[in-house]
Amino acid sequence: MIYITRRERFNAAHRLFRPEYSDEKNLEIFGKCSNPNWHGHNYELFVTVKGEIDPATGFLLNLKKLSVIIREKVIHKLDHKNINLEVDFMQGKLASTENLAVGIWKELSPHISNLSAQLHCVKVVESENNFVEYFGE
Amino acid sequence: MIYITRRERFNAAHRLFRPEYSDEKNLEIFGKCSNPNWHGHNYELFVTVKGEIDPATGFLLNLKKLSVIIREKVIHKLDHKNINLEVDFMQGKLASTENLAVGIWKELSPHISNLSAQLHCVKVVESENNFVEYFGE
Amino acid sequence: MIYITRRERFNAAHRLFRPEYSDEKNLEIFGKCSNPNWHGHNYELFVTVKGEIDPATGFLLNLKKLSVIIREKVIHKLDHKNINLEVDFMQGKLASTENLAVGIWKELSPHISNLSAQLHCVKVVESENNFVEYFGE
Amino acid sequence: MIYITRRERFNAAHRLFRPEYSDEKNLEIFGKCSNPNWHGHNYELFVTVKGEIDPATGFLLNLKKLSVIIREKVIHKLDHKNINLEVDFMQGKLASTENLAVGIWKELSPHISNLSAQLHCVKVVESENNFVEYFGE
Amino acid sequence: MIYITRRERFNAAHRLFRPEYSDEKNLEIFGKCSNPNWHGHNYELFVTVKGEIDPATGFLLNLKKLSVIIREKVIHKLDHKNINLEVDFMQGKLASTENLAVGIWKELSPHISNLSAQLHCVKVVESENNFVEYFGE
Amino acid sequence: MIYITRRERFNAAHRLFRPEYSDEKNLEIFGKCSNPNWHGHNYELFVTVKGEIDPATGFLLNLKKLSVIIREKVIHKLDHKNINLEVDFMQGKLASTENLAVGIWKELSPHISNLSAQLHCVKVVESENNFVEYFGE
Repeated sequence: MIYITRRERFNAAHRLFRPEYSDEKNLEIFGKCSNPNWHGHNYELFVTVKGEIDPATGFLLNLKKLSVIIREKVIHKLDHKNINLEVDFMQGKLASTENLAVGIWKELSPHISNLSAQLHCVKVVESENNFVEYFGE
Repeated sequence: MIYITRRERFNAAHRLFRPEYSDEKNLEIFGKCSNPNWHGHNYELFVTVKGEIDPATGFLLNLKKLSVIIREKVIHKLDHKNINLEVDFMQGKLASTENLAVGIWKELSPHISNLSAQLHCVKVVESENNFVEYFGE
Repeated sequence: MIYITRRERFNAAHRLFRPEYSDEKNLEIFGKCSNPNWHGHNYELFVTVKGEIDPATGFLLNLKKLSVIIREKVIHKLDHKNINLEVDFMQGKLASTENLAVGIWKELSPHISNLSAQLHCVKVVESENNFVEYFGE
Repeated sequence: MIYITRRERFNAAHRLFRPEYSDEKNLEIFGKCSNPNWHGHNYELFVTVKGEIDPATGFLLNLKKLSVIIREKVIHKLDHKNINLEVDFMQGKLASTENLAVGIWKELSPHISNLSAQLHCVKVVESENNFVEYFGE
Repeated sequence: MIYITRRERFNAAHRLFRPEYSDEKNLEIFGKCSNPNWHGHNYELFVTVKGEIDPATGFLLNLKKLSVIIREKVIHKLDHKNINLEVDFMQGKLASTENLAVGIWKELSPHISNLSAQLHCVKVVESENNFVEYFGE
Repeated sequence: MIYITRRERFNAAHRLFRPEYSDEKNLEIFGKCSNPNWHGHNYELFVTVKGEIDPATGFLLNLKKLSVIIREKVIHKLDHKNINLEVDFMQGKLASTENLAVGIWKELSPHISNLSAQLHCVKVVESENNFVEYFGE
């Protein structure tokens, strides 16, 4: 069993808030991340997959294919977008890094299985001081 | 003459566009940075000042004071904000990294002189692949 | 189950030695880290907690609160201090990175439980080439 | 149980290809990594060992000794070398990062046990976007 | 006058040697970098251009265009290549980082002028410990 | 004219204070950096030299020799030391990063001239947020 990780990046705007709350209440709960005019981040996404090495190639899987899947299924939807307003798999959810990691897992997981590997971890780095990891359960 | 640099960080949303243009024309000129729903970055700001070492302290200047000035005069206005909508010194300007660097220079410059040092460089890092430097002229 | 990590930093002096040994014997066992005049590091501390996402906030926990706990309980005691002489939870112990990671775990653990999350890992980075991880057992 | 990680680095040339294939077929399967004239990387190697803290030293093990073992047993063989042509433990294998991680594990594992610690993970970073981890099974 | 820097990366093999010398003499002068079987690096290239901000766009220049020029004129020739054997603008030169920086400058310079900006600096980072800068004279 | 930079690192303890002041007055002026029990840093040192490329080698100078000089003349004196108590070229000076950069310049400058190159810049990085540069005048 070998683990391989691919990093991709995206820049996005978001806001943490509950629409049924006032701006004041959102500020109290979510702090400056609730700014109604949005703010944003350079996110880093680390996708780790696991499986057996294919003796014919020396690879767990073709990393180019993994990169294409990550870009098509999640980066394309997130990069230079507003996470709250424009990302289909985040609709109806709070745009937290935790929910983002779970959402990305759900988007990627079925496509990874097609590569004869398993998704192991989705790690979303929001800043140099904060990151979230999700292992699927 | 010694040069000392302080790094501060801010997360902000922005959009590159001219209001008199259609979304299509903005997309053509500014690419995906023109997204009407905003996007954002983790910006890094490096402020370099220069001057003589004070023999009484071994310092060019008190770095705490420099940090306080940078935070009060620019980080406080930029962090978790929308650069286009909320930052006073960027009103009426395109929210490019170039204009941001010049704008930050103008905000900081008078306050640095009070520290018996001179502002030498404002460097704004937008992503790991792009940064802008401004030396005041 | 989601994992979230917060980074904090501290600068400290330390020395590796056993008081009952001569300087020569300490030098033999601990190398240049035994210098009787101390040396120091920019330490990075990564604290990982785990638990369920709270559907009301989208958070595992309020990261601000986690940061305040880490700063109050450990950074405040370590930053710009001498680990051997001034840090209460390191008294009577060798000031190794291993013991530091275990000590920080013991300081933090009871306070994390109050946040309806569990401490998962304490990682202490001593230099770009060395780090220690402790998972509580 | 404590985990300690040591980073070492090496610069090497390699090529991904099967000798029984034509250059065209190798290009199709391995992409530009199959270039017959070689290419290369600054590899980073992270070796993680685990075990109990020795109360006499505060150490899991002497990190100097670990570093010497890593340098003698693997870095010395890999640094400024051609992985395909010159590295004994990679002969007859495809020079992929996956095989490299497994090969390094086999080289290091017997020597770590002599340090009263266990090898836990070999991580090989090929670029800022790709890395492989192997845990020995 | 504003300065903007774009980073691009390439992985390449090279060897430092003079063909008229024996392997022993090359080893004496160039050290392990003279290995006849090649070695390689993850190079980072930082290209800095300078000029006036265009008031119509807020840009010094279109960074996309700059990136395309750097990729077409130099990265395409260098990435996953052997610098000694395959890079046209390095033929007949020692494949040192110094010569690489000067060679890249000459390749890029005429194309930057077409962007109504001037090339200011080519910086080539060979490892985390070594880099070279060339300012054109 | 080409510029080449070598990075070296050292870990040291220091304290900012004037011996004729009380601990209280030192605390007021130098903040927590005045802790009488010392604190410390992982310092990074970047030494930039400039000159002409030697056509016989493709080098400005032999980087190995530059590294040896930096290690012998400054790193050896600073690494795992107390800057206030043990570093000869810092005696009688405040142990600030500014004075450290100037002191390192004076130690290195005569030895660089022997390499048919000129010292251009000494940069001392004290933390990820602060660094000092000295250009010799």
